[in-house]
Amino acid sequence: MEPELHADVAALACLLGSWSGEGEGRYPTIEPFAYREEISFGHNGKPFLAYRQATVRVDTGVPSHAEVGYLRGVGAGRVELVLAHPTGVAEVAEGTAEMTADGVVVRLRSTSVTGTATAKDVRSIERSLTVAGDVLHYDLAMGAVGQPHQHHLHAELHRET
Amino acid sequence: MEPELHADVAALACLLGSWSGEGEGRYPTIEPFAYREEISFGHNGKPFLAYRQATVRVDTGVPSHAEVGYLRGVGAGRVELVLAHPTGVAEVAEGTAEMTADGVVVRLRSTSVTGTATAKDVRSIERSLTVAGDVLHYDLAMGAVGQPHQHHLHAELHRET
Repeated sequence: MEPELHADVAALACLLGSWSGEGEGRYPTIEPFAYREEISFGHNGKPFLAYRQATVRVDTGVPSHAEVGYLRGVGAGRVELVLAHPTGVAEVAEGTAEMTADGVVVRLRSTSVTGTATAKDVRSIERSLTVAGDVLHYDLAMGAVGQPHQHHLHAELHRET
Repeated sequence: MEPELHADVAALACLLGSWSGEGEGRYPTIEPFAYREEISFGHNGKPFLAYRQATVRVDTGVPSHAEVGYLRGVGAGRVELVLAHPTGVAEVAEGTAEMTADGVVVRLRSTSVTGTATAKDVRSIERSLTVAGDVLHYDLAMGAVGQPHQHHLHAELHRET
């Protein structure tokens, strides 16, 4: 039996399930690129959602980025994100989740970005994610590899039926 | 078609797949406890394994710990671990992987443990993981909540067929 969703993540209920779509990325140090993406959010009755994401390049079909972790509800509209990236980066972020008429707006800003010795140098990550009905948009800004914090990714995904 | 395993994680090939078993935990601040655990390692042809783990309490069947992330092969027998914990903790660790006659020994020590504002205060995590044939053992030591770094978990898992 599916456990009941914890009250502290009630505002995030519309995220639950699987999403697929496409996005595009740009950064001063790389060529712009387009990607296909799959995202899923699950829960086990505790006050967090399990999150995972993976992308493939549109041009080659080769796996590109992935990330996995947890989105925690900590009360009073506050949320926390803890993510592992296969590039060796660990992201800890805090922010807000606001319910809307047909979804939610989640805004997160990193409080620490750490990495292994061989990881890419990432200093800051800022995320905004909007669900409206069966459409999920997100934007991600990043300060990395000596560049100032700036827009990096935008994607639109649709709920899998 | 399954992609070929990247050469930088060749020593970790024996980890791939699913494992289940039992473990026990103790720490000065809590009652000793027993847990059932499932672990899986997968790959997509890149130089890392995707890792996930979840436990339930033996006494209650209720979900207990979980963690998810990536074990990176970075050459010359060196490995790096990046993990997200739903408790709000992000773990970055580095160490070694040594192949044995019938498996591997992986030793990792945290280089940074960060957390969200509401996370449990964890300072250090040290892991050793041994595969011998179809048996996986691990031990985990931790310095947390004001306690000195010390043994916390031991578990034995068997390869799922």
